[in-house]
Amino acid sequence: MVGAGNLATHLSRALQNAGHDILQVFSRTEENARLLADRLNAGFTTSLASLSAEADIYIVSIKDSALVECVSDICRGREDKLFVHTAGSIAMQVFEGHCHRFGVLYPMQSFSKGREVDFSVIPCFVEANNADDEAVVEALASSVSQSVWHFSGEQRKYLHLAAVFANNFTNHMYALCAEMLAQHDIPFSTMIPLIDETAAKIHTLEPRKAQTGPAVRFDRNVMDKQKALLAYSPELQQIYELLSKSIHKTSTK
Amino acid sequence: MVGAGNLATHLSRALQNAGHDILQVFSRTEENARLLADRLNAGFTTSLASLSAEADIYIVSIKDSALVECVSDICRGREDKLFVHTAGSIAMQVFEGHCHRFGVLYPMQSFSKGREVDFSVIPCFVEANNADDEAVVEALASSVSQSVWHFSGEQRKYLHLAAVFANNFTNHMYALCAEMLAQHDIPFSTMIPLIDETAAKIHTLEPRKAQTGPAVRFDRNVMDKQKALLAYSPELQQIYELLSKSIHKTSTK
Repeated sequence: MVGAGNLATHLSRALQNAGHDILQVFSRTEENARLLADRLNAGFTTSLASLSAEADIYIVSIKDSALVECVSDICRGREDKLFVHTAGSIAMQVFEGHCHRFGVLYPMQSFSKGREVDFSVIPCFVEANNADDEAVVEALASSVSQSVWHFSGEQRKYLHLAAVFANNFTNHMYALCAEMLAQHDIPFSTMIPLIDETAAKIHTLEPRKAQTGPAVRFDRNVMDKQKALLAYSPELQQIYELLSKSIHKTSTK
Repeated sequence: MVGAGNLATHLSRALQNAGHDILQVFSRTEENARLLADRLNAGFTTSLASLSAEADIYIVSIKDSALVECVSDICRGREDKLFVHTAGSIAMQVFEGHCHRFGVLYPMQSFSKGREVDFSVIPCFVEANNADDEAVVEALASSVSQSVWHFSGEQRKYLHLAAVFANNFTNHMYALCAEMLAQHDIPFSTMIPLIDETAAKIHTLEPRKAQTGPAVRFDRNVMDKQKALLAYSPELQQIYELLSKSIHKTSTK
């Protein structure tokens, strides 16, 4: 396991629970490497030159920029092994020229340290540069998740972008909401049942059909009153206007 | 029950389950009035002039614009009764001059027909123009919900606006996400575990602290690549840019 961040931690524990041996953990930070290695009863190293030569698969789960920088050091001397990375937005070709067998295993979830996740429901997107290894990566993913998908690198880019909307931007709506409520002495906890129901609805209803509110019918009267409440922040007014227009446009498609 | 829409339906059934008698249902549309009245074993009318004179409380759950237009007809001849409306964004003073005792019971949830909700967890916001009736409205709300709050009409406006962010805008993020995935032949169902986890996280973590993604560190390299994927829609690019800037601003506060 090359990496010891949130994704590396959750993935390696899921793999171990599924019966795989994690031989060794790499992290540049000794504390992180040791912490994860201890939990897995594995060895650890802080030097890419000391990566074990014994592994069947090298899973690279480090920052996008670090992956691009370190790929040659990761593969050097192990060119015939199978390498997979776990990054949504990086093509598997990042390995090209550095090793012969490579692929991707991208588990799409928002991982946090200290927060347990049920790995079995996390969609995993797999790809490899040859059919044999694609079967290996698929089997590996299937051992930890019931939701394994084959998509191209091009599709994965859009998947990753869509995840920015579904996670980053959605969470920001919650954050703006929390800020607004705090300014008026209303606890954020009052909003949680609505947030839960909003997410639960789209399990059975297409989001476009679940849409409600003044923007659907472009009710300028209500919208202008609400925008006026945001007069303290031209930026929030701009977000309100832009999203309302976009909702209306989507609803008339 | 003056009204037979989604909110009126869910609220009146919850009230009946709590042991209250719903005497009569009003809706301009006979089919809707009859449908709800039958479920409640109540009478119905399609004429405000024929509203029962026997009720202790008149709950007005109709469209905002209809409420403003019809308030005088709703109250006429019953000026000493207690009237409450269920609208988040309308002040209780809408009743002023039409009756003497009035208030608000605003259950904050996104109601859909045919979708069961657990009313007991829905936050209800209550208010009345005198202490005795505020106690009555509070008791009424408490009979159906474990989450009853006293806020002013001014606070309720912001609550309602915050709900637009938490529900309408959040759902639109899901819709944009679904559209993007459909364009690249990826099923929306792959996104549901991420959406669920995003909502679940903020039960225990402040949204600002749960924020992840390229916009937090304002990683122009990743952001520009993602914006380029949205080249087919200048409007989506604008949303991407505006929300990314806003995330970064919030994260540095």
